[in-house]
Amino acid sequence: MMHYLQLSSRICMPSCISSQPKTIWTSSTSGNEMRVGHCTKVSRSVNMENLQNEYLFPEIFMREFVHTQKYPHARLIRLGVGNTTEPIPDIITSSMAEHAHALSTVRGYRGYGAEQGHMELRRAIAEKFYNNMGIEGDEVFVSDGAQCDISRLQMLLGSNVTVAVQDPSFPAYIDSTVIAGRAGRFQEETGKYKNIVYLNCRPENNFFPDLSTASRADIIFFCSPNNPTGNAASQQQLKQLVEFAKANGSIIVYDSSYAAYISDDSPRSIYEIPGAREVAIEVSSFSKFAGFTGVRLGWTVVPDELLYANGFPVIKDYNRIVCTCFNGASNIAQAGGLACLSAEGYQAITTVVDYYKENAKIIVDTFRSLGLKVYGGKNAPYIWVHFPGLSSWDVFNEILEKTDIVTIPGKGFGPGGEEYIRVGAFAHRESILEASKRLKTLF
Amino acid sequence: MMHYLQLSSRICMPSCISSQPKTIWTSSTSGNEMRVGHCTKVSRSVNMENLQNEYLFPEIFMREFVHTQKYPHARLIRLGVGNTTEPIPDIITSSMAEHAHALSTVRGYRGYGAEQGHMELRRAIAEKFYNNMGIEGDEVFVSDGAQCDISRLQMLLGSNVTVAVQDPSFPAYIDSTVIAGRAGRFQEETGKYKNIVYLNCRPENNFFPDLSTASRADIIFFCSPNNPTGNAASQQQLKQLVEFAKANGSIIVYDSSYAAYISDDSPRSIYEIPGAREVAIEVSSFSKFAGFTGVRLGWTVVPDELLYANGFPVIKDYNRIVCTCFNGASNIAQAGGLACLSAEGYQAITTVVDYYKENAKIIVDTFRSLGLKVYGGKNAPYIWVHFPGLSSWDVFNEILEKTDIVTIPGKGFGPGGEEYIRVGAFAHRESILEASKRLKTLF
Repeated sequence: MMHYLQLSSRICMPSCISSQPKTIWTSSTSGNEMRVGHCTKVSRSVNMENLQNEYLFPEIFMREFVHTQKYPHARLIRLGVGNTTEPIPDIITSSMAEHAHALSTVRGYRGYGAEQGHMELRRAIAEKFYNNMGIEGDEVFVSDGAQCDISRLQMLLGSNVTVAVQDPSFPAYIDSTVIAGRAGRFQEETGKYKNIVYLNCRPENNFFPDLSTASRADIIFFCSPNNPTGNAASQQQLKQLVEFAKANGSIIVYDSSYAAYISDDSPRSIYEIPGAREVAIEVSSFSKFAGFTGVRLGWTVVPDELLYANGFPVIKDYNRIVCTCFNGASNIAQAGGLACLSAEGYQAITTVVDYYKENAKIIVDTFRSLGLKVYGGKNAPYIWVHFPGLSSWDVFNEILEKTDIVTIPGKGFGPGGEEYIRVGAFAHRESILEASKRLKTLF
Repeated sequence: MMHYLQLSSRICMPSCISSQPKTIWTSSTSGNEMRVGHCTKVSRSVNMENLQNEYLFPEIFMREFVHTQKYPHARLIRLGVGNTTEPIPDIITSSMAEHAHALSTVRGYRGYGAEQGHMELRRAIAEKFYNNMGIEGDEVFVSDGAQCDISRLQMLLGSNVTVAVQDPSFPAYIDSTVIAGRAGRFQEETGKYKNIVYLNCRPENNFFPDLSTASRADIIFFCSPNNPTGNAASQQQLKQLVEFAKANGSIIVYDSSYAAYISDDSPRSIYEIPGAREVAIEVSSFSKFAGFTGVRLGWTVVPDELLYANGFPVIKDYNRIVCTCFNGASNIAQAGGLACLSAEGYQAITTVVDYYKENAKIIVDTFRSLGLKVYGGKNAPYIWVHFPGLSSWDVFNEILEKTDIVTIPGKGFGPGGEEYIRVGAFAHRESILEASKRLKTLF
C-alpha cells in the first residue's frame, strides 16, 4: 500500500475532503466537529483549541490524497514533505539487520539501553560532528528524531518562558509552543500568535533577522541551513546570534538537521561559534543526513555550561526529561547510526546526500530558467521560490492541479512564507527531471 | 560494555555516589548543584524543581553501579528494573532484519511512515487485542512505548486537569504529572503531592481502591496487571471503575502493558468492560510482551466515542499531538511488531512469556517458603513482598548488600509501597534459581 493511502483513516478524512484550502485550514474549534454522546467532564485544553491549523505535513499528504482521488491516473511527483527516497547504503542496513538477528541470541540480546543512548554512539556523534568544539559524549542525548526532541524541550521549560522563531520556519517550533501554552492568542490580522517573537528572515535581510530591533525571548529557535528557505547562516551571522543570546540571557535551540547539505564554509554547528556552549542547545537528526526518516534517529546536545538563571545546569533537567518521558531510541536504529559514522558508512551516505544536492541544483536551474527568484538549494535540500504578489496556497494549488507536482505553500511555515513555495529535492532523479519538464511547460 | 556502565556519565554520577538512600533521594533543588559561570535569564521550571527524586529506574541502575564499584567481584543478579533478558524469537528478528535490508533497495526503501503507525499494524493490534471490543485500527496509535505515550497524554491535556493514581504505581504517572505542572507541592509528611489523588491499593482492599470515598479526578491512571503489585483487577472491579469514571466524568488512562501475563480470567483490556469506550484510553506495549524493551514499540488506543466536556473528540487532539510531537515508531520495529502478531510469532513469544511466568512462580515460592506474605507473580512478572514494619529502602539495601540481588524498594512507587519490595521475574532461569538459593540463606 502506498504511504499516503495509509493516512486515509476516518480520523483524518473529515477535515480534508474539501479541495478548498480555506475549509481545511479553519480552526479546529469549529462547532461541527463536536459529537453527541456521553461527554466526560474533562475540559479540552485551551492550548489545543488555540492551534489554528492541522499540522502542516499531514495536511500536505491529505492534499495529495485528495488530488489522486480526483485524478486517479495522475503521475504524482512529491516534492512537498521532505521525505527521503533513496536506498540506505548496505553497510548501514546490514549493521541494523545484524543487530536485529543478534537479538535472537542469548549473547546478543539487549533489553533497555541507557535512556540517553548508547555511550559508543554518543561519543561517535560528539567526535564526528563536534570535533574540537568541546562537546563530549555525555552531552549528547540520542533520540528518535529532532521533531520529538523539540517537544521534549517544551516539556523541560517553565510556563512563563517566551519563545522566538525565524519567520518562516519549521512549523513544529510554533505548534509545540502553542501546545505548551506559551504562544498567546492567534491574531487573524497578522497571522501570528501574540506572545511569539517572529524574526523575519527574507532575501532583503539575507535571511537573517535585524537583531538590533528584535525583542528579547527566553528561547530562540534557529534552524540553519534553514527549513524552508534553504539558507545557511554565515559565521558572522551566527556570531551575532550568540552575542545577542548572551546579552539577553536567552537560550538558542539550534536545529542543524540539514548541516550535511552545506556546500560552502557556513558553520555546520552552533558550537563552531565561541561562547555558544553557554547559550545554545543543538538539535539534529539522521533523517535527511542518512535517509533515516522512517528508521527514526536524532540527537540533542545540551552543554554542561548551559545554566538557568539560578545557576542550575539545564543538562540535569533535560536528562531527567529523557529518563522520565522517553526511554531511548530503538537499539536497532542506534546500531544503524553507529554504522553511519564509520569511515565507510559516512562515505556511502555522503554519496546519497550529493545525489539530493544534484537534484536541488536541477530544481534551482529550472525555476531560474523561468525567470523566477530562487533561494536555497546550495546548502540545503530545499528550494525557496518567490512568486511576487501571489498567495502561496494558490501557487501550490495551481502547480498541483496543472502539473501533478506536490510542493509546500510557504505560508504553512509562517506569515513570512507568503508569496513563496518550498520545493524539496528528495525524489528519484527521473522524477526531478520530469518535474523540471512539466514546470517549464507550465510557466 | 555492560549496560549499567553506560550510565556512568558525569551527568548522573554526582547524585549517586553516596550509598545513603537519603542523600540520593533529596530534592534536586539542593544548592550544591548550582554552578558558577554565565547564567542565562531563563528561569528553571518550577515543575522540574518540584520533582522530589531522580527517576526511579535510573536511580536503581546507579545503586547497582555503586554496589559493583564497592564489590568488584560480586555476581550481581538483577531483579530490579523490569528488563527483559530472553532472546526474541527468530521469526520476529528475521522480519526486522529483512525490513532493514529492504531499506537498501529502491523497491523496499521507506521514508516517513504515517505518524500514527502503519495501518496494517494498527489493524493487527485491533484484531489481536481488541477482538469484539469495537476497537478499530484507526483508533490505535502505534508508538515507541507506553512510557513515552504517557508523556504525550500529558501534553494533550489542559493545565487545570486533575490526576489520580493507584498508590503504589509506576512512577512515570506521577513524575510526568509533576513535570506537566498538575501535581501541586510535595508534602513531606505524607510523601504525596498535594493535588494528586492517591488511590490506595493494598492487600487489605484486594488492591482495589474504595471508590465510594475516593475524590474525583479528571484523569485516573490505572495499571492492570499492576506494576508494582502484580495484581490484576477483576471484571467486577473494572466494572466499578468504569462506572465511577462515567459518574464523575473522568477519563481512565488504562495501562495494560502486562496483559500478556494474565493467567486467569481477569480482563486483558479495559474495553472488555461495557461502556469503557466512552471513558477510557488504553496504553500498552510490546516491551514485556515480546521482549521489545530495547527495540521500542507500544501503542495507545483512543476510542472515537471519548469526548471532552464540550463534545470535542479526544482522538482528534491526540492525533494532532502524535503528528506534531512525534513522528512515528521506527519502521523496523513496526515490522517486528507485525511479526509478533502473526500466528507463528505470537506462539513463539507466548513461550517466552511462559518462561518468565515460571520464573515468577519460583520467586513466589521462595519468599513464601521463608514465611513472608507475597503478592503478584501469577498474572504479572512482578512479585510484591511484604516486610511488615520495615523501611523498603532498608530491605532493598540489605538484600543488595548481603545477596548481591537487586530489587526495587516499594516506596519508589509511592508512599503506599512502604514495607514492600518489588522483585522482577526477568532473568535467566539459572539466575532465578541462584537468587532463590541466596535468599533462602539470607532469611
